[in-house]
Amino acid sequence: MPSSLPFSAMGHKLTARSGILELMDDLGRAMTIEPDMRMLGGGNPAHVPAMQQIIRERMVQMLGEGDAFERMIGNYDPPQGNPRFLKAMAVLLQRSLGWNLGPENLAITCGGQTAFFYLFNLLAGKFSDGRRRKVLLPLAPEYIGYADQGIDADLFVACRPHITWPKGEAANEFKYGIDFEAVEAALKKEDIALMAVSRPTNPTGNVHTDAEIERLSVLAEEHDIPLIIDNAYGAPFPNVIFTEAKPFHAPHVILTMSLSKLGLPGTRTAIVVAPEKIASAMGAMTAIAGLANGNVGQQLALPWVESGQILEFGQQILRPYYAERSAHAQAWTREFFTAAGVHWALHASEGAFFHWLWLPDLKIPTRELYERLKKRKVLVVPGEYFFFGLEGDWPHSRQCLRLNYSGNADAVREGLKIIAEEAAKAS
Amino acid sequence: MPSSLPFSAMGHKLTARSGILELMDDLGRAMTIEPDMRMLGGGNPAHVPAMQQIIRERMVQMLGEGDAFERMIGNYDPPQGNPRFLKAMAVLLQRSLGWNLGPENLAITCGGQTAFFYLFNLLAGKFSDGRRRKVLLPLAPEYIGYADQGIDADLFVACRPHITWPKGEAANEFKYGIDFEAVEAALKKEDIALMAVSRPTNPTGNVHTDAEIERLSVLAEEHDIPLIIDNAYGAPFPNVIFTEAKPFHAPHVILTMSLSKLGLPGTRTAIVVAPEKIASAMGAMTAIAGLANGNVGQQLALPWVESGQILEFGQQILRPYYAERSAHAQAWTREFFTAAGVHWALHASEGAFFHWLWLPDLKIPTRELYERLKKRKVLVVPGEYFFFGLEGDWPHSRQCLRLNYSGNADAVREGLKIIAEEAAKAS
Repeated sequence: MPSSLPFSAMGHKLTARSGILELMDDLGRAMTIEPDMRMLGGGNPAHVPAMQQIIRERMVQMLGEGDAFERMIGNYDPPQGNPRFLKAMAVLLQRSLGWNLGPENLAITCGGQTAFFYLFNLLAGKFSDGRRRKVLLPLAPEYIGYADQGIDADLFVACRPHITWPKGEAANEFKYGIDFEAVEAALKKEDIALMAVSRPTNPTGNVHTDAEIERLSVLAEEHDIPLIIDNAYGAPFPNVIFTEAKPFHAPHVILTMSLSKLGLPGTRTAIVVAPEKIASAMGAMTAIAGLANGNVGQQLALPWVESGQILEFGQQILRPYYAERSAHAQAWTREFFTAAGVHWALHASEGAFFHWLWLPDLKIPTRELYERLKKRKVLVVPGEYFFFGLEGDWPHSRQCLRLNYSGNADAVREGLKIIAEEAAKAS
Repeated sequence: MPSSLPFSAMGHKLTARSGILELMDDLGRAMTIEPDMRMLGGGNPAHVPAMQQIIRERMVQMLGEGDAFERMIGNYDPPQGNPRFLKAMAVLLQRSLGWNLGPENLAITCGGQTAFFYLFNLLAGKFSDGRRRKVLLPLAPEYIGYADQGIDADLFVACRPHITWPKGEAANEFKYGIDFEAVEAALKKEDIALMAVSRPTNPTGNVHTDAEIERLSVLAEEHDIPLIIDNAYGAPFPNVIFTEAKPFHAPHVILTMSLSKLGLPGTRTAIVVAPEKIASAMGAMTAIAGLANGNVGQQLALPWVESGQILEFGQQILRPYYAERSAHAQAWTREFFTAAGVHWALHASEGAFFHWLWLPDLKIPTRELYERLKKRKVLVVPGEYFFFGLEGDWPHSRQCLRLNYSGNADAVREGLKIIAEEAAKAS
């Protein structure tokens, strides 16, 4: 073997020991070869029986539809996505939400992570005129998976949030709000190419209010830049949102949607809704970097999109399921952390399927708490990873854990008990 | 919408109107919304009935295996690939070919195109010490899909081949051979990070001889660089090779394999066999740029890999099928081009499912011939796209077409007749 195998500058950047790699390695191992691990890490959606039954029936139906199965596995789609699927999705969004768009505004990518890799590096980073444009995150903590995606270094600028206690501090429930003064200052100070938020937010379960989103949209328009909304958990599907929140679209908004949280992560299917120039660029980048997308997710979902049934899954199946799981996990958290005598709070659980646990008295970084918990067969995601792009030191960034409460209920309950024990030891 | 939406330097590079984008757009449209197009373009594998039956039965079997289907669609795998699949593949390669490797030498990517995007940009391009290292293609024409993959410009250096007439010029059959003098000169002149060949070669159907591959391997070792062999059509699977050729592996060789040409392009599944440092880097890059791979291809193929049955598909089903299709298309080519009075030759058809047609008297670029043929509902791939990285002008590069002969037989026959007519008009 070659003695050194040196890596390029980009190679070094994209093979660093990233948070997302650790998270996905932990997750993948727990899902495949370490079934005894109590899995509160990772972002795997729950195996929701009613939803799984629908997906299974759809595959059986496809096997009975002439050569539909053979075409799905045996043919390449165009790089921008399956034309029939794109058309059906455009019609659905027009009809159900009144959005003014067509198939030319849509592109498929191999999952939302790939969509963001393309979007960030397409719109930000080094420009041929020498400029280095950045991505502004109006509120950190923000999704761990973005952190290492810049091919160029220092891609992100992020703002600390306001912390509020909607039900009073005694209720142990806080909510992050966007600090618009900080956002406006960053827009003035830096060369910002775009703003990006996830809504519901991964990792916190925060749902930015309609007013916040509208204000971000106005700011984006004023600065002539796109606003990307990562809608992986959002409306109109999978609609894992427990509060009132309007789906938002505007000509300068790029929306990413996904089939993963509907229950199809193994198919790697995301839908980008964007200005035509951007949607077309997604197809061009897919051709060069990946040839085409996987077809399975699109073909499984096609009749649900054509009939509009995909809009019902969230309302009827997923939202009630995850809302109940969140309520149980909240009750267990209260029980175990009160019993352990640990100072704690959860971010308001407004959507997605994570609890964001804040341990203000923790004396060790959550990176270290994560290691201790892993030894006790509990996987969590340390909060440090979600605070990229911020200036200055913020102790809060070492005091939070992301907990996926959607897995096996016994494992979640046991896991929370062990976390409370370890938090007590480390406080 | 934002008034300009400027693209970064990398964005410009990866959204250029690339050959691979045109090819995949043409292909995807023909496969989905233009069924009247005679499809000799693109790289879609044939729908081989016996193989399709096996894949269908496997899906039905999986649906009957408890929650195997639910785990496949509903769980994320680790970024480097499904642990059980990687282990089974390592055992298969050890056992059947005697290769000295383990699962740590393997990584899954979302198709071979993605594997090359990662590999080229990981090992070549800009280095932090200011060097710009290049990819050496020992023989152009080489696969169109590589051409635009460099995030940095001018990634490729390529060498013209020797042209030989193994059966005499009257037989209308030529073969490209590697010009080792040119290869050694390039290795001396440029800062080469790696060499890459496809075997069987896309677009020509050339199978580099065992002696050529061994000599490239020795050169790579002497220069302390990896040799990448793109084995998408090669042995041990799918084994669409019509000559004798040994599968090749060495510690400094990176081999890419794929499930696409087995009949599963819609699942986007490639397997990279590489030094552990590289395989591990593939997983890291997948985590950052794509989170995880699609699971469907790996889970469909798993029992075939565990049982070794995957080695039989080529021998028993695919090779005889494509060899027969190649023989028919060769006979039609001879018939129509002789009748049209056009000077023609085909590259020796030694593997893959393309014929590489050389029209030495053509008076227009094949880019223009492609347009004329498209108007007559025949899709081909113009040869110009496959000659990237060469120095100087070479008229030969404007005289060749890549023809996929694996589609519907009537369409191939009619297509060849129309190509001969248009070639006569343009000669």
